[in-house]
Amino acid sequence: MYEKIVQIALLFDFYGQLLTEKQIEIIDMYYNNDLSLSEISEQLGISRQGVYDTLKRAEKTLFDYEEKLSLVNRFVQQKEGLASVNEMLDKVLETNENDAASIKNKIADIKTYIEKLI
Amino acid sequence: MYEKIVQIALLFDFYGQLLTEKQIEIIDMYYNNDLSLSEISEQLGISRQGVYDTLKRAEKTLFDYEEKLSLVNRFVQQKEGLASVNEMLDKVLETNENDAASIKNKIADIKTYIEKLI
Repeated sequence: MYEKIVQIALLFDFYGQLLTEKQIEIIDMYYNNDLSLSEISEQLGISRQGVYDTLKRAEKTLFDYEEKLSLVNRFVQQKEGLASVNEMLDKVLETNENDAASIKNKIADIKTYIEKLI
Repeated sequence: MYEKIVQIALLFDFYGQLLTEKQIEIIDMYYNNDLSLSEISEQLGISRQGVYDTLKRAEKTLFDYEEKLSLVNRFVQQKEGLASVNEMLDKVLETNENDAASIKNKIADIKTYIEKLI
């Protein structure tokens, strides 16, 4: 469930503006404010089933956009690339290596990695 | 004009799958295969005005998606961040500095920059 929440949050962050106002409102209440279907139903004055249907349709729309465009995936991959560069630099810092030339060699390898990402 | 072509190409790369098949076909012929409106009109057997209208509507749709979602902008910024990291590493490599500790200090600064991007 946690994984799904993170996934929906990310999809919502990317494609949320393509949903209807009502869908945005319900996704926000359910995922960001952690309200139950019954609580949302009460607050909006619509049936619990209505809330459920709107929520499911909104989720499906978000997944459909990602299936078509893969932009979340593209963004996450780029972010992972940056995180990898960060880790590689960590290793350079952590090494006991005190030879500047050898450190520069490692930096050159990291640059090769970055240039594939750009 | 060149700038517009690059921009449309990028928007098309991101949001192209949200266009209709006909729009995709015409954008592709015009921007990727560099055909004129008249040539497209002839090839598809539709009026030059029809080609023009479809093209303009498709372009507007692409710009509208970017105005709502800003995902190209987000992606370009992330990419520019990576390019900056690459340049900073270049400078470390180019320096005549041969003191490992001082090189490591520069790497630590680069890491601070990366961590703001992640």
